[in-house]
Amino acid sequence: MSVLVVGSVALDSIETPFGGVQDVLGGSASYFSLAASLFTDVKIVAIVGDDFPEEYIGLFKSKGIELKGIQKASGKTFRWHGKYGYDLGEPESLGTYLNVFENFDPVIPGDYRDAEYVFLANINPELQLHVLKQVEKPKLVACDTMNYWIEKKPKELREVLKNVNLLIINDAEARELAQEPMIIKAARTILEMGPEVLIVKRGEYGALMFSEEGIFWAPSYPLEAVVDPTGAGDTFAGGFLGAMANDDTYGSAGLKKAVIYGSVLASFTVEDFGVKRLTDLQHREIEARFTAFLKLSRLD
Amino acid sequence: MSVLVVGSVALDSIETPFGGVQDVLGGSASYFSLAASLFTDVKIVAIVGDDFPEEYIGLFKSKGIELKGIQKASGKTFRWHGKYGYDLGEPESLGTYLNVFENFDPVIPGDYRDAEYVFLANINPELQLHVLKQVEKPKLVACDTMNYWIEKKPKELREVLKNVNLLIINDAEARELAQEPMIIKAARTILEMGPEVLIVKRGEYGALMFSEEGIFWAPSYPLEAVVDPTGAGDTFAGGFLGAMANDDTYGSAGLKKAVIYGSVLASFTVEDFGVKRLTDLQHREIEARFTAFLKLSRLD
Repeated sequence: MSVLVVGSVALDSIETPFGGVQDVLGGSASYFSLAASLFTDVKIVAIVGDDFPEEYIGLFKSKGIELKGIQKASGKTFRWHGKYGYDLGEPESLGTYLNVFENFDPVIPGDYRDAEYVFLANINPELQLHVLKQVEKPKLVACDTMNYWIEKKPKELREVLKNVNLLIINDAEARELAQEPMIIKAARTILEMGPEVLIVKRGEYGALMFSEEGIFWAPSYPLEAVVDPTGAGDTFAGGFLGAMANDDTYGSAGLKKAVIYGSVLASFTVEDFGVKRLTDLQHREIEARFTAFLKLSRLD
Repeated sequence: MSVLVVGSVALDSIETPFGGVQDVLGGSASYFSLAASLFTDVKIVAIVGDDFPEEYIGLFKSKGIELKGIQKASGKTFRWHGKYGYDLGEPESLGTYLNVFENFDPVIPGDYRDAEYVFLANINPELQLHVLKQVEKPKLVACDTMNYWIEKKPKELREVLKNVNLLIINDAEARELAQEPMIIKAARTILEMGPEVLIVKRGEYGALMFSEEGIFWAPSYPLEAVVDPTGAGDTFAGGFLGAMANDDTYGSAGLKKAVIYGSVLASFTVEDFGVKRLTDLQHREIEARFTAFLKLSRLD
C-alpha cells in the first residue's frame, strides 16, 4: 500500500558547534517521504517556490516518490534557519520564512484520494481538516502537531484528533496537550480525545506507544555521534508509516514493529546533516540496525 | 549468598509540592539494604548517632538485615534536608549535616570479610578503598559515586574503579567522569578505567548496561504518580545486587534480569515518601511488576 503525506518542503540552514549546511532540502514532508520510500510508494502533497532546486526534485524522483501533488508557486520556498548548542537538544530558531508556504492550500490530486495510509505532518490543523475532507476512507490516518497549534488552534486541533487513528508527538507536546505532567496520565487524556494510538517520541530516550492494548517502550539506538537532530521526528513518522503500509495489517504486533522501524530510520537521519544519510541508506543497513534494536532490550 | 553494603544511614527531611516528611529513615545504605533484603541476606556497615530512633533499628531487624556493622557514635545522625520542584527532578539541598558521618571509619566485622557480594555506596573513595582492603576475594564488587568525588578525589576514585567489577551511576555522572557528552563513548572510556560492567541510571528513562557483551536497555516503569524520587538510585542498586546475590551466577542473562529487578524496586520506592513503600512491599507485587516490565518492550 502507498502512503500519502501532506506537509512542508523547505530549504534549511543548520548550524551546530561541529559544522553546518545552507539551504539544503528540509521540511516535514521531505524527511517523511524519504524515510517512507524505503518501505513503500509515497505520494507527497506540498508547496515549493520557483527557486526550488531541480536537484531535489530529481532526488525525490530517484526514490520513486510521486510528485504530482507538489505545487510550484511563484516566490520563494519555505526557509528555516536553526542553530544547535553543544547538547544538540532543542535548536534556536534564527529565522522562519514561510514564503510560499504561507498560502499553502493542500489540494489532493483526484487519484490520491483513495490513499489508504495518510500522514498529516505538522501544519495548521485547519489544513489538516481540509485534507481529511478530501481523502476517502483511509485505513490509517496519523498526524503530528506542535506547541504553536496546541496553543493557537485548540478547537481545530481537537477536531483533527477526533478524526485520526494515530497521533505522533514528542513528550513536551503530549504534556502540553493534556495539561498533565505525568506522561502516563497525559496519554490517557489524549486517547480520550480521539486517536486509538498515541506515540510519544522522546529523542535519545526512545519512544512510548500507548493504546488500548497497553504500553510499548521502544529504545533509541545509542549512537557514537549525533551530527544533526533536524528531521528525526518526521523521519520516525516516515519509517513508522512506511512500515505499516508495507505490512498492511493494522494490529498490535505490526504497530510495535513499525515503531522500531521508525526509531531505526531516525537513528540514521541524525548521523549526518539534513536528509543526507537517508538518501544513501541501504536496506541491509536498516535490517541490521533493526536486529540490533531488538537485541538492546532482550533478556536472553 | 549475602550482600555487604557500606554507606550512609541518615534522617531525611523531604519537601515536595505535594507534601513532605521530617527526620525519616534515609541514606544510601538504608534504601539499598531494604531493597536487597527482599532477595537475600544483607549485612550493613554504617554509622548512626545516639539519637537514631530504635524504631528504625527494629525495621532493619524485621527485614533480617544484620546490624553488627552499624557503629553507634555519640552525637547526631547524618541529616539531609531536600526540596523538590514540580518536575520532581533534581532536588535542591536545603541542608546537609554530616554529624557523626563526618568521622565514619568503616570497619568490616571479622565474619563479614568473606562477603561475596559487596556494594560500596556513594561515600568518599578513600573509605571505599579502605573497605576494599578489608574484604577477602568477593565475587562481585559494585560501587556508586557522585560529582563531588569525581571532582574532589579523582585519583582515589580511579583507584577504586580499578578494583571493582561494576559501577552504577547516573548519566550526568557518567558524562562528567568520562569528560564526554555522548553516553556510548563515555561508557567505553569508563570501562577502560577498570569495571567490567557499567550501569547508567536515567531516572524515568530507564537504565543502560554496558559491558563487553554489548548494551542492554532497560525501560523504567511508566508510573501514574511519583511521590518522592529520593533513594531511587540506591534502591535500584539494592534490587540489582540482591537479585545478583540470590541468583549467584555472574553472567550476561543474570545481569540483565538483575537490572530489571533494580528498576522494579526503584519504581516502587518513588511511589511514597522515603523508604515507606519498600517496607510493606510483597514478593507477588515485585514479580507482577517484573512481568509487566518485560512486556513493555516485547514485540509479540
